[in-house]
Amino acid sequence: MQLGMIGLGRMGGNIVRRLMRHGHTTVVYDKDAKAVAGLAADGAVGSATLEEFISKLERPRTAWVMLPAGRITEQTIDTIAGVMQDGDVIIDGGNTFWQDDVRRGKALKARGIHYVDVGTSGGVWGLDRGYCMMIGGEKQVVDRLDPIFAALAPGAGDIPRTDGRDGRDPRIEQGYIHAGPVGAGHFVKMIHNGIEYGLMQAYAEGFDILKNANIDALPADHRYDFDLADIAEVWRRGSVIPSWLLDLTSTALADSPALEEYSGFVEDSGEGRWTVNAAIDEAVPAEVLTAALYTRFRSRREHTFAEKILSAMRAGFGGHKEPKRPDASKPK
Amino acid sequence: MQLGMIGLGRMGGNIVRRLMRHGHTTVVYDKDAKAVAGLAADGAVGSATLEEFISKLERPRTAWVMLPAGRITEQTIDTIAGVMQDGDVIIDGGNTFWQDDVRRGKALKARGIHYVDVGTSGGVWGLDRGYCMMIGGEKQVVDRLDPIFAALAPGAGDIPRTDGRDGRDPRIEQGYIHAGPVGAGHFVKMIHNGIEYGLMQAYAEGFDILKNANIDALPADHRYDFDLADIAEVWRRGSVIPSWLLDLTSTALADSPALEEYSGFVEDSGEGRWTVNAAIDEAVPAEVLTAALYTRFRSRREHTFAEKILSAMRAGFGGHKEPKRPDASKPK
Amino acid sequence: MQLGMIGLGRMGGNIVRRLMRHGHTTVVYDKDAKAVAGLAADGAVGSATLEEFISKLERPRTAWVMLPAGRITEQTIDTIAGVMQDGDVIIDGGNTFWQDDVRRGKALKARGIHYVDVGTSGGVWGLDRGYCMMIGGEKQVVDRLDPIFAALAPGAGDIPRTDGRDGRDPRIEQGYIHAGPVGAGHFVKMIHNGIEYGLMQAYAEGFDILKNANIDALPADHRYDFDLADIAEVWRRGSVIPSWLLDLTSTALADSPALEEYSGFVEDSGEGRWTVNAAIDEAVPAEVLTAALYTRFRSRREHTFAEKILSAMRAGFGGHKEPKRPDASKPK
Amino acid sequence: MQLGMIGLGRMGGNIVRRLMRHGHTTVVYDKDAKAVAGLAADGAVGSATLEEFISKLERPRTAWVMLPAGRITEQTIDTIAGVMQDGDVIIDGGNTFWQDDVRRGKALKARGIHYVDVGTSGGVWGLDRGYCMMIGGEKQVVDRLDPIFAALAPGAGDIPRTDGRDGRDPRIEQGYIHAGPVGAGHFVKMIHNGIEYGLMQAYAEGFDILKNANIDALPADHRYDFDLADIAEVWRRGSVIPSWLLDLTSTALADSPALEEYSGFVEDSGEGRWTVNAAIDEAVPAEVLTAALYTRFRSRREHTFAEKILSAMRAGFGGHKEPKRPDASKPK
Repeated sequence: MQLGMIGLGRMGGNIVRRLMRHGHTTVVYDKDAKAVAGLAADGAVGSATLEEFISKLERPRTAWVMLPAGRITEQTIDTIAGVMQDGDVIIDGGNTFWQDDVRRGKALKARGIHYVDVGTSGGVWGLDRGYCMMIGGEKQVVDRLDPIFAALAPGAGDIPRTDGRDGRDPRIEQGYIHAGPVGAGHFVKMIHNGIEYGLMQAYAEGFDILKNANIDALPADHRYDFDLADIAEVWRRGSVIPSWLLDLTSTALADSPALEEYSGFVEDSGEGRWTVNAAIDEAVPAEVLTAALYTRFRSRREHTFAEKILSAMRAGFGGHKEPKRPDASKPK
Repeated sequence: MQLGMIGLGRMGGNIVRRLMRHGHTTVVYDKDAKAVAGLAADGAVGSATLEEFISKLERPRTAWVMLPAGRITEQTIDTIAGVMQDGDVIIDGGNTFWQDDVRRGKALKARGIHYVDVGTSGGVWGLDRGYCMMIGGEKQVVDRLDPIFAALAPGAGDIPRTDGRDGRDPRIEQGYIHAGPVGAGHFVKMIHNGIEYGLMQAYAEGFDILKNANIDALPADHRYDFDLADIAEVWRRGSVIPSWLLDLTSTALADSPALEEYSGFVEDSGEGRWTVNAAIDEAVPAEVLTAALYTRFRSRREHTFAEKILSAMRAGFGGHKEPKRPDASKPK
Repeated sequence: MQLGMIGLGRMGGNIVRRLMRHGHTTVVYDKDAKAVAGLAADGAVGSATLEEFISKLERPRTAWVMLPAGRITEQTIDTIAGVMQDGDVIIDGGNTFWQDDVRRGKALKARGIHYVDVGTSGGVWGLDRGYCMMIGGEKQVVDRLDPIFAALAPGAGDIPRTDGRDGRDPRIEQGYIHAGPVGAGHFVKMIHNGIEYGLMQAYAEGFDILKNANIDALPADHRYDFDLADIAEVWRRGSVIPSWLLDLTSTALADSPALEEYSGFVEDSGEGRWTVNAAIDEAVPAEVLTAALYTRFRSRREHTFAEKILSAMRAGFGGHKEPKRPDASKPK
Repeated sequence: MQLGMIGLGRMGGNIVRRLMRHGHTTVVYDKDAKAVAGLAADGAVGSATLEEFISKLERPRTAWVMLPAGRITEQTIDTIAGVMQDGDVIIDGGNTFWQDDVRRGKALKARGIHYVDVGTSGGVWGLDRGYCMMIGGEKQVVDRLDPIFAALAPGAGDIPRTDGRDGRDPRIEQGYIHAGPVGAGHFVKMIHNGIEYGLMQAYAEGFDILKNANIDALPADHRYDFDLADIAEVWRRGSVIPSWLLDLTSTALADSPALEEYSGFVEDSGEGRWTVNAAIDEAVPAEVLTAALYTRFRSRREHTFAEKILSAMRAGFGGHKEPKRPDASKPK
C-alpha cells in the first residue's frame, strides 16, 4: 500500500522506514531537502514541494502529517487539503489536541476529505519495537488503511495474552486500536501521556525519599545510604511495580547513580495539560495526574512568585526573615 | 498574680511585658543575662540561674517555659521539675509537639507537678494586640491561672459578636480557650498553623496566576498587566476573601510590588508537618494542607532528585534532552 | 445617573435597590413580570420586553446584564446589541468566562458599542454591605460610569487603611478597581473565587482533623473531644487566621455543631475550573487551588470509577477483597 | 537449610512451600492447628506451641515471623526471643514499620540475638513467581541466610538484563537485595508500596477520565464511548506505560468492563502512610504518593466533615443551598 509522509523527523522518518521494511511504498516530503534525500536513498519517493508530494500520490491519496507543532500542522493540512480531492485521506499522527481534530474533521468532511487522527507512542524505540497506535476516524477509512497500521504496530510478540479476550477485536493484541470517531485517537493518546506523567512522578518521588534517607536532619540510627541502582533493578523482579519506565530508570541509575548530568528542569508536552483540562470538563478528580504536571511546571522556575508572597506574609505576621539559603530539610 | 518566665526572646519577653502592664508580677530567666537585665529594668524580678529563678517563685509556683526548640525545652522542663514541688505548675507555651505534652504531663503528674500546654498565637503583634491562646491541662489548674490568661488575651475588642453564643464559655470571646486535657492546647495550635499554611498558599497561588497573566506564551489578546497591590487592597473591601493575612499581603505589595527582597525560600515550622501526620493518623484527607507544606519543602531546593529521575526517564524513552534552562511557561 | 438592569434575581435586584438608595434612576427588565413589578414598586422603571427596556434608556444607554448562565447571557447581549447604537454600553456583571468577554468586546467594538465586564462579589450581603467590583473595559467608559460603581461599592467604612497607599488610585479603598481592558474584571473575579475555594478548603480540612481527633483508631491517651464552635470563635480573636470566612464558620458551628443539615455535596461554579485552566496556560503550579476544586468534584460522587480500578488491581495482585464498608479510619 | 516459620497465612504458608520445593527443611507454627496440619502434610515439621517450635529448631535457630498485625508480631517476637540463645536469628517478614525494626534490632542485639527485616513482595503469585525481597540486617547474618533468600527469590527468569550491571551484586538480578542495616529492608519495601499506590492512582485517574468522556455535560461532538478493556490491552503493547499493574487492569476490565462488583471502598496498609511520614521527615515533596493515599481515605467515607464545612460557608456567604444530590459533573 502507498503512504505519503510529510515531516521526516525522528518519528516520521522511522515510520516511513518501518513501512518500507514491511513492503509498503512511500512518498515523502520535508522542508529539509537533506531529510528527503536520506529517505529517498532508503527507497522512498522524494518530493521537493508539497504540490509535487500530492501529485505523486495515487488516488485515493493517503497523506500522513507528522510535524512537531500545532501551528505548522494546521497550515500544512490546510495547504494539502486545498489540492486534495474527494475520497482522499489526511492522517495527523502528531501530538494534536483532540478538539482540533474534531474541528478539522468536520471541516474536511464537508469537502469530501477524510480525516484520521493517530496517537502514536513508541518514541525512539518505535522503528524496531513498533508503534502503539490509538486511532480515531470513520470505520471504513480506518479499515481501508489497516495494512499501514498493521505494519507499524508492534505485533503480538512475546507479551502474554490477557485472559478473557477471545472473540474481541484482534487488532488490539497487535498493538493498535480504532478507539472511536475523529478525535478519539488523540484523546486516548492524551490520557496515555497523562498517565505516563503520573507513573513517572510516582517512581520519582519514591526514589527521592530513598535518596534523602541519609540526611543530617534525621536521627543517626534512622539514616540509610541506599544504592538506588540496585533498588530499581530488584524491583524489576517479582515486585508489584515492574514496568517499562522502571526498566529505563534502572538503566539510567546503573549508568549514573546520582544523575548529575540532568539539570532537573523537566519539560511538559501539551498532553499532560489537556488531560487535566479534560478531567475538569468531566468533573473527575485527577489529583495525581495534576500534581505530576505541576511538579514539572515548578521544576522550570527558580522560584515562584507564590513563594515570595508566602515570605512576605511571614515577615508581616511573625517578623520572620527568610534566610537566603536555609537548610532544605529541617523545620525551623 | 505571679508568673515565672524562662526564655525572654521575642515571644517570652513580650508576654512578660504584657503581664506587667496588667499588674502582674514576674520572675524571669534567660541564659542571655542582657535579656534578663532588660526585663528587670522594666520591672521584672531577674534571676541569674534556673535555681535562683525557682527559689524566687512563691508556692505553688508557676513557671512558663517559652523556648524555641524542642530539645532545650525538654531539658529545661526536666531541670526545673527536679526542684519543683507538689502542686507547682509548668506551662509550655512554645511550639511543642502535642504528643510530647501528653508524655510529659503523665510523667510530671506522677510527681505531683501540673503541666499546662499553651499554643500561643500573635507573633510580633501580641504585645499590643494580645495573644490568642489555646490551652490544654487540668480544669482546676487552668482555672486557677485564669488571671494570667485573661491579661494576655486580646479581649473582646471591637470584633463583632457571633450570633448564637449566649450562655457559652465567655473566655472564648476574650480570645483564649481551655481546649481539653494536656496536649489539647498544642493540638489546636498545630491545626491553626496547618490552616495558616493552607490559607497562605491559596492567596499565594492566586497572586502567582495574576502575576503571570502577561507572559509571552499567552495569546496577545489574552494578556493582562495587573496591579497586584491594588487587587490585594480591593479584595479587603466587600469581597468574600478578606482576612488578616490578606491585610498583610496588601501592605507588603503596596511597599514592594514585585517582592524582590524575598529569596523565595520558605521555611516551615513543625506544626505544618504534625498536622499532616495527624491527618494521616485519622485517615482524614488533607490535600490542601499537605500541598501547602510541600510547596515550602520544594521552595528550599534548587532541584529535587525526583526531577532528575523524570529527566532520565524522558531521555530513556524519547531521547529527550532536557535543556539547561528552558522557557518556564511553554509546553514543548 | 441612569442604569438599565436585565435580570432581577438576588444579585440584579439588590444592585438596582442599592443604586436607587443612592439616588440613581433605573430601568429594569426580567422575563419574570413579577420581579419587574416588585422593583417597579420600589421606584424602578419597569419594562415588559427587551425592546421596551432599550427604548426607555437615555442615550448613551447603559445596560447591565445580570443573568445566571452563560448561554442566556450571550443571547441577551446579542439581542440588545442588535438594537443599541454607537456609544452605548453593555455591562456584563455575571459570572462570565473572561475569554468570552474578550471575544464579545472585540465584536461589539467593531459596531461602536462599548463592553464592560464587572466581577461582582458580595452575595446576599451586598445590598447593605456593598459590592466589591472588579472591572474590565476602556478607561473613558469605566470613568464615565464611575457614579454607578461608587454607589454600589462598599466604601471605605471602618476597614483600617493600608500603609503606603497615599497617592494611589482612591477607588481601590472604596472597594472597586478598574483592573484593565475588557476581560480583566472577570479574570480578577475568577482568581478571587479560586482563592476562595482554597481558603475554604484549608479551614475545612483543619476542622475535619479536629473533628476526627476522637476516633477509636487512635490510642486512648491521644484522643480529644474538641468543641469546634469554640475553636472557630477563639481563632477570630488574636490568631493569625481570622477572616470573613472564619466568621461565617463560627456562626454556622455555633448554630449547628455537627452540621447535620448539610449533605456534604458541594457544588462548584465555573470560576474554580477556569482558575485551574489559567494556571495551566501560564504553567503556574496551583496545587492548593486545584485540590480544593477536586474535593468538590469528589464530594458529588458516591464513588469514582478510579476507586473501582484500584480495588480491581488490589484483587489482581493480592487477592484482596475490599469489604463493602470498611472502617474508614484504620489501615488494614 | 532449616527455617522455622511462625504464621501460616497466605504469605507464610506459601513461603514454606516454596522453600520445601527447593529442598529446604521447615518447622512451622500457627495458632490455627489446621494450618499447621496442612503444611505438615506437605512435608513441614509441625509444632503445637511456640516452645515446641523453638525446641525443634537447630542452633543457630532461624525463625521467620510472618504475621499480619503489628501488635501480635511484637508479642510473638518478645516471646520467642525470651527462649532463644546467642547467635539465633529472628526474621520479621511482615509489613512492619521500619522504626520498630530499628528499636527491636537494638534490643535483641544487646541479648546476642540477630534481627533481620525482610520486605516481601509477591502476594498470591509468589509461590510460583517467587518473592522480591528487600532485606535489612547485619552482613554476615544476611549472607549466612542466603540459601533461603535464593530459594524464595524469583531468579533471573526471562526478564532482560539491564545494561551496565556487570560486576555489581549478582543477588539483585535474582530478585533480592541486602539493602542495608536493620530497618533498611522494610524501608525499601515501604517505598515500594508508596510507589505502588501512586502508580495505581495514575492509571485509575486516567481510566476514570476515559470512562466519563461520554457524559451529558459535555458538548455532543466532544463525547466518546470508549472501550476501556481494549484501551488497557493496547497500552500493554508498544506504549510507554506497560507494567504488571496494567496487565492486571487489562485482565480485570476484560472480565468486567464496568467493575460493578467493586464497592469503591479502598483500603490502605500502613506503608502508604509511613511513606508520607518519611517524606515529611526528610522534607521531600511527595505530592503524588500523598494524593494517592488521600484518595483511599476519601473512598472509605460517605462524606467528609470538611465538605459540610464548605457547604456551611457557602450557605453563609451566598445563601447557597446545596441540593441533596446534584448532578456530579456540571458546574453550577
